[in-house]
Amino acid sequence: MKLATLRDGTRDGALVVVSRSGDRFAPARQVAPSLQAALDDWDRARPGLEKLSAAVQDQSIETRPLNVEALAAPLPRAYEWVDGSAYLSHVLLVRRARGAEPPTTIRTDPLVYQGGSGVLLGPTDPIVVPDLQWGADFESEVCVVLGDTPRGVRANEAEAYVRLIMLANDVTYRSLVPAELEKGFGFFCSKPATAFSPFAVTPDELGAAWRDGRVHLRLRSYLNGVLVGDPEAGDAMHFSFFDLIAHITRTRAYTAGTILGSGTVSNDDPARGVSCLAERRARESVEHGTPRTPFLAPGDRVWIEMLTHEDWNPFGTIVQEVVSE
Amino acid sequence: MKLATLRDGTRDGALVVVSRSGDRFAPARQVAPSLQAALDDWDRARPGLEKLSAAVQDQSIETRPLNVEALAAPLPRAYEWVDGSAYLSHVLLVRRARGAEPPTTIRTDPLVYQGGSGVLLGPTDPIVVPDLQWGADFESEVCVVLGDTPRGVRANEAEAYVRLIMLANDVTYRSLVPAELEKGFGFFCSKPATAFSPFAVTPDELGAAWRDGRVHLRLRSYLNGVLVGDPEAGDAMHFSFFDLIAHITRTRAYTAGTILGSGTVSNDDPARGVSCLAERRARESVEHGTPRTPFLAPGDRVWIEMLTHEDWNPFGTIVQEVVSE
Repeated sequence: MKLATLRDGTRDGALVVVSRSGDRFAPARQVAPSLQAALDDWDRARPGLEKLSAAVQDQSIETRPLNVEALAAPLPRAYEWVDGSAYLSHVLLVRRARGAEPPTTIRTDPLVYQGGSGVLLGPTDPIVVPDLQWGADFESEVCVVLGDTPRGVRANEAEAYVRLIMLANDVTYRSLVPAELEKGFGFFCSKPATAFSPFAVTPDELGAAWRDGRVHLRLRSYLNGVLVGDPEAGDAMHFSFFDLIAHITRTRAYTAGTILGSGTVSNDDPARGVSCLAERRARESVEHGTPRTPFLAPGDRVWIEMLTHEDWNPFGTIVQEVVSE
Repeated sequence: MKLATLRDGTRDGALVVVSRSGDRFAPARQVAPSLQAALDDWDRARPGLEKLSAAVQDQSIETRPLNVEALAAPLPRAYEWVDGSAYLSHVLLVRRARGAEPPTTIRTDPLVYQGGSGVLLGPTDPIVVPDLQWGADFESEVCVVLGDTPRGVRANEAEAYVRLIMLANDVTYRSLVPAELEKGFGFFCSKPATAFSPFAVTPDELGAAWRDGRVHLRLRSYLNGVLVGDPEAGDAMHFSFFDLIAHITRTRAYTAGTILGSGTVSNDDPARGVSCLAERRARESVEHGTPRTPFLAPGDRVWIEMLTHEDWNPFGTIVQEVVSE
């Protein structure tokens, strides 16, 4: 099933169940007022949401037309946003671009960072770039939403904790990264609010494309209407979501509604393009000695979406415009 | 006023208003079911809580005896837990201990990291140390709880966003830190769940001890009944909470209930002792060539509290025992 959060003036918004086509919805308030409330009580809420989803699909209840601009992030505020960096070609290219060595354990020890999760952007919220010198960039990612997840989960047990799948644009101010990482405590000011796709879907919606803890589909990123990348998000994901869950639960537990990201989707093959400008700039530096693509500037438009092999758009499209304030 | 969260089987617990002495309470459900709910609607909730607090104090309503073991963290799950490292003597000692250089910007650019906030420990919850080799340590800190805080707050405007003050034990697995920081993305597995003091108090409760965005009192840490440190938390705090708020709001906004920590309280004067074992071990290494104090082991007991000049204990005492599982 396909879930979304309608802005209704409350902090968590109103949970709605969306048609497979993404253009109609029914309120889910009789099951749970918000997506967080549904995740807090998933075993009880899930059957009710499934029933509602079936009714939306066969039009046995009244539905309303969906306006994607009325949607908040599926979780407008979340208890944790943990972002991996599971595509090694991204790690290698971006570190090369800033003259940093990749970690020696890159193939055995997953990279994750803790992101800010209290203010998350909806799919059409603007990307604010108050200072062009900050080097604003998009990062197109896949992410999962976890249920209550205890400490010490093994990768082969991890599937049971994955409740939903969605897309993210993990906006990054590239120029703030080097000085921040130099301090040793990881990203902070270099990571403003992250944006999420219109819809969060249960894994079964993706059929065989969801397997081995990976989404085996291409993630498409467009800048100003031009396709800049459509890398395969499946096989190139070196650490699967199950591996990432095993890693993050090594020393602590997670509450329902925790969001876990894949990191920027990236393939070794340059023909697949990029899911962030930093990679393209890194490739340009190798080829021409200097990057040619500028970072994001007011007026730029970023689109991120994933189509299935049947040209179905399960998560809807992230459509953000860059603004100065 | 003095607020606490009683475990009641729900995820957020039940908000209660506590007497100044800390030994009696009255439920606050008629004002707000949980502390998060009160923070979400602070302008409306605050007058009701203040009225209740006055009634608890003058015994004009029925109160019940408070059992600190029945308390969860004031916020059992929070939307963000942002921890600074504002005491420079701590940064210098701990980096020296692991052979790392302090950042060159240590005096001008605050250090903060994003902690996990979905699962937070109550004041008497055990510290779990599944592996002695992880080098478990306590870190005694002061922290504030923010209301809705926009991007771009200046230090001289920051006081308006501070709702509550409390203490924290930011448990750290020291032996996991070097390899993790080496990867460049900051702490993650090295920071298990953080514990908080029984009570969160409004700044006015501290009188003149709360000024300039600092708590000018000594923070006392005890290990197995022995005082190991009582550093002054005020003047030694190089970056005040107001400076930290200005820093963290440079590129993003925060939702009500965000917790912001001071980092381990530390004084230059070794006679003031330590608020974590890593500092003591660092000093022992300098003096004897090798650390003598072991990290935490099952059976150890950690106490953290702060007394006012009138010997009043505003936050209550964090009392944790170390267990293996």
